[in-house]
Amino acid sequence: MIKKPETLAGKLGLTFNDPNLFAMALTHRSMGARNNERLEYLGDSVLGFVIAQKLYELFPEAGEGALSRLRASLVNQNSLAEVARQHNIGDYLILGSGELKSGGFRRDSILSDALEAIMGALLKDQGVDVCQQWILRLFDDKLAALKVDDWTKDPKTRLQELMQASRKPLPVYELVSMSGADHAQTFEVKCTIALTPETRNGVGISRKKAEQAAAENMLNFLQSRDK
Amino acid sequence: MIKKPETLAGKLGLTFNDPNLFAMALTHRSMGARNNERLEYLGDSVLGFVIAQKLYELFPEAGEGALSRLRASLVNQNSLAEVARQHNIGDYLILGSGELKSGGFRRDSILSDALEAIMGALLKDQGVDVCQQWILRLFDDKLAALKVDDWTKDPKTRLQELMQASRKPLPVYELVSMSGADHAQTFEVKCTIALTPETRNGVGISRKKAEQAAAENMLNFLQSRDK
Repeated sequence: MIKKPETLAGKLGLTFNDPNLFAMALTHRSMGARNNERLEYLGDSVLGFVIAQKLYELFPEAGEGALSRLRASLVNQNSLAEVARQHNIGDYLILGSGELKSGGFRRDSILSDALEAIMGALLKDQGVDVCQQWILRLFDDKLAALKVDDWTKDPKTRLQELMQASRKPLPVYELVSMSGADHAQTFEVKCTIALTPETRNGVGISRKKAEQAAAENMLNFLQSRDK
Repeated sequence: MIKKPETLAGKLGLTFNDPNLFAMALTHRSMGARNNERLEYLGDSVLGFVIAQKLYELFPEAGEGALSRLRASLVNQNSLAEVARQHNIGDYLILGSGELKSGGFRRDSILSDALEAIMGALLKDQGVDVCQQWILRLFDDKLAALKVDDWTKDPKTRLQELMQASRKPLPVYELVSMSGADHAQTFEVKCTIALTPETRNGVGISRKKAEQAAAENMLNFLQSRDK
């Protein structure tokens, strides 16, 4: 049996003026037309804004690139699903029978979308200030644990240092493909490291940029795995 | 001679508590370490949020996909540079001599970045409500001209219209491969456009379906790039 949305709202420290809005935030599209997709769109935008603003304040010395990487490290599907799990949001999702049977309440994408939809619902119900405070409370631990130094270096350098610290061979970057005309080529590069059998690819308009993208994807994978 | 920032602030209807913040928003990185890049990061996030929220209110029947596409049509480098030009922001930019000589004040990217930086400066100076009102006033005409129908159209039509609006050549679709037996063929098509060196492929059970898929992938790429 699905647990009551009010119970979850209480646990999250939220009281909605319009409880239907909160219930809608928990409703996956497998339930039909009235679902949380619009609220997720709204929540995604307010979350990005709130975290961007907070990082701007927290790290007055950080450049735009480091701030963007810091934000991407907080606001991504893995990270949001982790927060959703901490609050047992999966137990309260309103899913169609197909998704229920296939364990949709455990899926990162569905959990992450629902958390963003809750943010959207709160924004609509109580405005940006209340929503901002709640989001910052939710991300309090993650924000406190951030180290800006980790994000001032480029991804290839960070991955290399990680491998050296683990006393492992350096990452290997292999060109997978090149496409496009001479003046507008796209490169795809595969990154392989000794810490995992997984590989990660990156795409870019130069081989170097593709390598940086692959290193970044690998770092994100390691980060989500090691959490 | 560079025109005074106060003059521009007045024309934009803005009075800054901290005028240095506004001057910084106009300062390109070619001037050195104290430039508008951090403010641009902040402005980009508040702009995305404000427009997302407004579209959510304006189009209660639009799905998440249409809302995202509407937003991408408003919040992109071309559109922001256009708004910046309407307000002659280029005349007030504080650029290093190299950028000045090469006409940087006319470049889309520099204009668009400066406009976002002004939004960031206003957010920091006067908070989210004032900033939101100003952004919405700035985008008033563009918001009024939006037709949600434009965004429920099929991907090829949307991509074609996007190129026409940007005064660029139409998208090119090339057959990359055909596979499978006669009665069960799969087509792969590559989409190339003049807005980016990136290409996107699409796969389908007819050439037409593969083209639609490629157009959709290209639209998604443009959207994520311009976020």
